[in-house]
Amino acid sequence: MKVAKFGGSSVSNAKQIKKVLKIVNEDPERKIIIVSAPGKRSKDDIKTTDLLIRLYEKVLNGINYQDKKKEIIQRYADIVEDLKMDDEILTTIDETLELYISQLSDKPSRLYDALVSCGEDFNAQLIANYNNNQGIPTRYISPKEAGLIVTDLPQQAQILDSSYEHIYKLRDYKEKLIIPGFFGISKQNDIVTFPRGGSDITGAIIARGVKASIYENFTDVSGIFKANPTIIDQPELIEEITYREMRELSYAGFGVFHDEALQPLYKDRIPVVIKNTNRPNDKGTYIRHDREINSDNVISGISCDKGFTVINIKKYLMNRQVGFTRKILEVLEQFNISFDHMPSGIDNISIIMRSNQLKGKESQVLNEIRKRCEVDELSVDHDLAILMIVGEGMNQVVGTASKITHALSESNINLKMINQGASEISMMFGIREEDAEKAVLSTYEFCYHGVCLKNLCS
Amino acid sequence: MKVAKFGGSSVSNAKQIKKVLKIVNEDPERKIIIVSAPGKRSKDDIKTTDLLIRLYEKVLNGINYQDKKKEIIQRYADIVEDLKMDDEILTTIDETLELYISQLSDKPSRLYDALVSCGEDFNAQLIANYNNNQGIPTRYISPKEAGLIVTDLPQQAQILDSSYEHIYKLRDYKEKLIIPGFFGISKQNDIVTFPRGGSDITGAIIARGVKASIYENFTDVSGIFKANPTIIDQPELIEEITYREMRELSYAGFGVFHDEALQPLYKDRIPVVIKNTNRPNDKGTYIRHDREINSDNVISGISCDKGFTVINIKKYLMNRQVGFTRKILEVLEQFNISFDHMPSGIDNISIIMRSNQLKGKESQVLNEIRKRCEVDELSVDHDLAILMIVGEGMNQVVGTASKITHALSESNINLKMINQGASEISMMFGIREEDAEKAVLSTYEFCYHGVCLKNLCS
Repeated sequence: MKVAKFGGSSVSNAKQIKKVLKIVNEDPERKIIIVSAPGKRSKDDIKTTDLLIRLYEKVLNGINYQDKKKEIIQRYADIVEDLKMDDEILTTIDETLELYISQLSDKPSRLYDALVSCGEDFNAQLIANYNNNQGIPTRYISPKEAGLIVTDLPQQAQILDSSYEHIYKLRDYKEKLIIPGFFGISKQNDIVTFPRGGSDITGAIIARGVKASIYENFTDVSGIFKANPTIIDQPELIEEITYREMRELSYAGFGVFHDEALQPLYKDRIPVVIKNTNRPNDKGTYIRHDREINSDNVISGISCDKGFTVINIKKYLMNRQVGFTRKILEVLEQFNISFDHMPSGIDNISIIMRSNQLKGKESQVLNEIRKRCEVDELSVDHDLAILMIVGEGMNQVVGTASKITHALSESNINLKMINQGASEISMMFGIREEDAEKAVLSTYEFCYHGVCLKNLCS
Repeated sequence: MKVAKFGGSSVSNAKQIKKVLKIVNEDPERKIIIVSAPGKRSKDDIKTTDLLIRLYEKVLNGINYQDKKKEIIQRYADIVEDLKMDDEILTTIDETLELYISQLSDKPSRLYDALVSCGEDFNAQLIANYNNNQGIPTRYISPKEAGLIVTDLPQQAQILDSSYEHIYKLRDYKEKLIIPGFFGISKQNDIVTFPRGGSDITGAIIARGVKASIYENFTDVSGIFKANPTIIDQPELIEEITYREMRELSYAGFGVFHDEALQPLYKDRIPVVIKNTNRPNDKGTYIRHDREINSDNVISGISCDKGFTVINIKKYLMNRQVGFTRKILEVLEQFNISFDHMPSGIDNISIIMRSNQLKGKESQVLNEIRKRCEVDELSVDHDLAILMIVGEGMNQVVGTASKITHALSESNINLKMINQGASEISMMFGIREEDAEKAVLSTYEFCYHGVCLKNLCS
């Protein structure tokens, strides 16, 4: 059994929905379908979810919201008309929106979650209806029926482990099932959304729950690029990548597949394939637990993300002091700061974190470190970018580090930091934010195509 | 005022002692002299300190020790005879050894410290006597007179901060002062030795106490080599190096200047020069707080040490968990383990320490980490060597990492780990122990002489 998820642009209008259903219907294994809210139909279009957020804002501020509501209903009306469906569903949409607005006006964050969940929910109902009317037994399943029971912190839903048993029963349905992505139901019966982009998470949870053979993630690209396509002109696609590699890449800026969505898949080793709704026969990118390594595919991808801060601490004879680093980490914990890396020397240590972790509390944190840890010197470096070169087994291949540092050196990029661990599948470089694009370009060209500017050895 | 320390081979016999006193007497600024115990006179000779340890062992085991004692006295007798001195001092030596043996036989570790301190102590008395008899006003000062008051844990003496004020008064003497290295006196009046090689520590403490303009450390080499001379044939000497660089190098195997001896000098920025007793006009190596960096001297030295172990921990979504690393460090602290480096990835962390830190408790430590930290995977890698490339400002120079990784790659050395921090003056590479010599050789030849085997770029 396959679970397939279709992203916003794949279900943005009637034409796209027909493509989706052609894909769904041609494979009897594709039994459970997760859909997003209608996305952009053209570059300047507005996503349905964004319209719903504006509706929420108007309601919250007591502004007349009827026009915004009509605009939203019109998105579905366009689809209904183009699919030549009965427009009864539009009344349901209108009534549901009004119901949420009236019932939840005194609970703003519940109202937010309920309204934005509508984008996916209406679309799922609509698509299920349409497919069923075409003679293919199809059923809309709400997250509640599916058993998607989640924690109740608004916009931060996390699946409860007990849900999976319930979800497994979805296998019993004979029909194809259409489930809206992006939200679940709390034990208190409230609608709670996953973090934005969370339809991927719904799909992953369902795929794990039903023990799918594969989780197909349909989007508008034919897979995952080896590097950011806004920096590299038409980068190559990755054929196969492991969960761990995917996670390292998404950490440092790869946005194709939602980071948190990997978690449910990881334990049961359910493979994912990223495919293109518009070119369904393209191979796509497979995300698996393991992959075969050969000399050509050592490096899976190259990513670079900005917005990191590093705290540098110097303390003479630091490595002799049992407990010194632990004290520093206690300070970070006290301020609820999670850090990403911690390279150290004999007498110094650097702590790298996303700059937003320190927002509004930087000086407090530094003062507390000074107070508690008797450091010799303490400095902070903002505007750091993290370049991440990711590949399973790259630490087994002699010369990988040499290639990469050579490419960076040729581009005159100063390495503020290098971090490669013993069990690692990645090398991390700390560079200046202004060097980020140049770093991706030079490592991509050199690692994949052997192109560099001049010889290192004279 | 200069403080000069002379190592064991510089004071091993009459000929060497004359060389030392020539050096001492020709510069009126050289007022305070720290001497070691007589070292080896030839390759197969035994150091006086080692003879004293054998004496201690015999006493401890209730074996007749008279022959060993005579052997020790004979070392001094040879010097006395060659210097044509009165042999009265030999009686003092005999009586002192017997006194310690009778007084401390029920306190083995006190006896150990007292007996091994004799090597330096007798030598200082002898040299002071001789120089004074030559007409140069010279005085033996015992550590007690000097004010070298230390903590009382046997063989682990640490200077008390309050001692420095007392030591400063040594400036008041008009004579040249000869002080034995290697030990101090506890508040309870016990002799307590510094860690082995600790005459360097005595010299550093005295230099700081009297606020010396320089601390001259005379040994049997003309300075510090840029790499291990047992690996590199006649390596170049370092002209100038900073305390921090020296410390990083001695950490990973550079034995010329005792690591702990830098600490007293660090705060008051007292420079050190390593000089050769046998070639006193050679420039030597200066150890200072700062040094001028130019394109030729970016890399100060290359060292490599074996005997490290790395614990690798994998934990999915590790970086999201505030407090995860802190918990691991608490386990290490519980077992009194100090670690040296801790490179980390998104989902894994490696902890590098000297293998002896884990001796006898490895499985306990691992079990405790498993129990407390809910790790996904835990593995241990023994037989790691640490290659350390050290240079102030090397992280400012584009291409340093590239050069080094290139050299290592050309020698087919796999890099298990790379660690370069933001504020660092060193790059650390984790390699297999069997690659250690090859790694030093290839980086030395490439970084200093540009010699490599083939071009990186084809």
